[in-house]
Amino acid sequence: MQGHRQSTAATIRVVTQVIVLNGGSSSGKTGIARCLQAILPQPWIRLGVDDLLEALPPSLMDSASGVAFGQRGEVTPGEGFRVIEAAWMTGVAAMAKAGARIIIDDVFLSGAASQQRTRGYLAGVEVLWVAVRCDPGIAAGREIARGDRVTGMAALQAETVHKGVVYDIEVDTSHTEPMDCARTIASRVA
Amino acid sequence: MQGHRQSTAATIRVVTQVIVLNGGSSSGKTGIARCLQAILPQPWIRLGVDDLLEALPPSLMDSASGVAFGQRGEVTPGEGFRVIEAAWMTGVAAMAKAGARIIIDDVFLSGAASQQRTRGYLAGVEVLWVAVRCDPGIAAGREIARGDRVTGMAALQAETVHKGVVYDIEVDTSHTEPMDCARTIASRVA
Amino acid sequence: MQGHRQSTAATIRVVTQVIVLNGGSSSGKTGIARCLQAILPQPWIRLGVDDLLEALPPSLMDSASGVAFGQRGEVTPGEGFRVIEAAWMTGVAAMAKAGARIIIDDVFLSGAASQQRTRGYLAGVEVLWVAVRCDPGIAAGREIARGDRVTGMAALQAETVHKGVVYDIEVDTSHTEPMDCARTIASRVA
Amino acid sequence: MQGHRQSTAATIRVVTQVIVLNGGSSSGKTGIARCLQAILPQPWIRLGVDDLLEALPPSLMDSASGVAFGQRGEVTPGEGFRVIEAAWMTGVAAMAKAGARIIIDDVFLSGAASQQRTRGYLAGVEVLWVAVRCDPGIAAGREIARGDRVTGMAALQAETVHKGVVYDIEVDTSHTEPMDCARTIASRVA
Repeated sequence: MQGHRQSTAATIRVVTQVIVLNGGSSSGKTGIARCLQAILPQPWIRLGVDDLLEALPPSLMDSASGVAFGQRGEVTPGEGFRVIEAAWMTGVAAMAKAGARIIIDDVFLSGAASQQRTRGYLAGVEVLWVAVRCDPGIAAGREIARGDRVTGMAALQAETVHKGVVYDIEVDTSHTEPMDCARTIASRVA
Repeated sequence: MQGHRQSTAATIRVVTQVIVLNGGSSSGKTGIARCLQAILPQPWIRLGVDDLLEALPPSLMDSASGVAFGQRGEVTPGEGFRVIEAAWMTGVAAMAKAGARIIIDDVFLSGAASQQRTRGYLAGVEVLWVAVRCDPGIAAGREIARGDRVTGMAALQAETVHKGVVYDIEVDTSHTEPMDCARTIASRVA
Repeated sequence: MQGHRQSTAATIRVVTQVIVLNGGSSSGKTGIARCLQAILPQPWIRLGVDDLLEALPPSLMDSASGVAFGQRGEVTPGEGFRVIEAAWMTGVAAMAKAGARIIIDDVFLSGAASQQRTRGYLAGVEVLWVAVRCDPGIAAGREIARGDRVTGMAALQAETVHKGVVYDIEVDTSHTEPMDCARTIASRVA
Repeated sequence: MQGHRQSTAATIRVVTQVIVLNGGSSSGKTGIARCLQAILPQPWIRLGVDDLLEALPPSLMDSASGVAFGQRGEVTPGEGFRVIEAAWMTGVAAMAKAGARIIIDDVFLSGAASQQRTRGYLAGVEVLWVAVRCDPGIAAGREIARGDRVTGMAALQAETVHKGVVYDIEVDTSHTEPMDCARTIASRVA
């Protein structure tokens, strides 16, 4: 897991501070995050965009300035949400710099642009970028099975959230259990 | 519920009134039940042992007379719970007889003996008995992934709940999606 | 609610089998029901219209045939919902007749007409009818405080659900704690 | 947002960046926080110790190193929890410095010592310190009414969490509605 370059040069041990799990709704991110918490030797905390949504005032939910949710599963973040998200992510980065190991459960609605924004917030933090892929049809079935999400979100997001995003590692929950995905990811945590 | 009189012999069309999904904790019963609700042409309601647990007074939770939960996932129903369960199941049977189509999500902790008891409560009701199987190791992983169950329950129950139980149809969620399991079951609903 | 002593014959002690708590959204019914479960000497189970809503298939939620929820808190039950509600209440009555003591948490959207319907379902069952009143303005504030209900429901229902309804006892949560309301009700449980 | 020094008189407009609501379990902090979000003109986000607990790995829940929960409602934070809490609070302070307005819902288990620790984390941030008091007996009744907390916590914490803590403003939910408490607090938000 760690390269030991010795002889003349300094040995820099890079330690993963944040794991970003990016995937569409119902792709299985949260389940993988919980499995990671269970198997990683150090304590990791879970934070995600759902926690931010939960923390928002009513004026920023289901509003144009905040986050608008369409009847077919469309999610449209507005300017007011972006401002708070920026402050929130700045704080999450500060938590990591202060020593917390953090698994971030995110949905890159704008693909590469979202990653770039996130990369900016997490500047100076060692991040492991993970794709949590899932076949759109399978994710849509799981969305119905869980019963607590607007129908349509899973299929809409399944592929778009990965557009142009660069990863360190990719897992696919279509035919792989959350715990097995977690093991694959854990093996890459430095 | 309606017979079609024919010229020489009466053809009685038996209509499924209750679908009993029996499987261990984290085997995926609830997800299948929700998918069934989404694809069956008629309205079906979901009821299960978890709803009964939710309805119980505190004196019957985590008590010897009620339901005792062990630290390793053991679940031990006491006499007080059995008395209420009997009345509750009698009522569920009455709902079915009054015309409600019901998907019962159950855990036959005593296998065949549980089925016999359930069969007694549902006497006179047309039941489709469904096994929801799941590999114990896979169910244990999903139990960690969902994060809201006592660890150990899934593995303990995975096989014992099926001991001696007779089914009309069996599905296995180890490698089959909830929606696909639901389609298989739906094809058998009369 | 008491037996009538007669000169020579035996005294018949009528025992409460069902407690119906009727009140608008956010009036505090569920809290009172939990307190009743905690203080009543016998085990009582809690069932309510919210449990039925939870059990419904998606086709009956937010639909004209099922239950329609307006943006300002209007709740409109359709024909499809009424059919299932009838079967469900018939089953709840059967539970009571089979020996379960039941606290029903209900919202009489049509006031007296709802009570009459409920009275029909519960024919032959000894019922204690309880009004759970709450000042509309106070209920509206609590609706915001709890944060999980459509804003407007509390104020809309606060008074209409009691129109023409006849009670054995009334409590008002505006200035009385749930536990104190429960004690008042418990003193009337035979 | 910054004060502008002027030639003749300093006009420093101090703007509240964080509202800390401190009170025992079931004292009504979260309800007040939601009401504050509804009535304050600017968007405020809600974060609290419950969110941190929710984010923790299983190894830090119900463990000596993490947070231990006793059967009578005792809560004992261990060293492992303290380390993560410090990083988390550092991050919350960074969110505030980055422009997010934050309502923190906290339980000062060690009274004055907890406040001093929190004050340290929030150094450089303008904080409004609010006591959310509730009569121990009333809080205990509400704990039973809500039904999702270990019985005993409310009474144990009701007074100890305020020991030696210095506030800008105090509210008491014993006889005042959450919305009214929120209005009182809102009038002090600069």
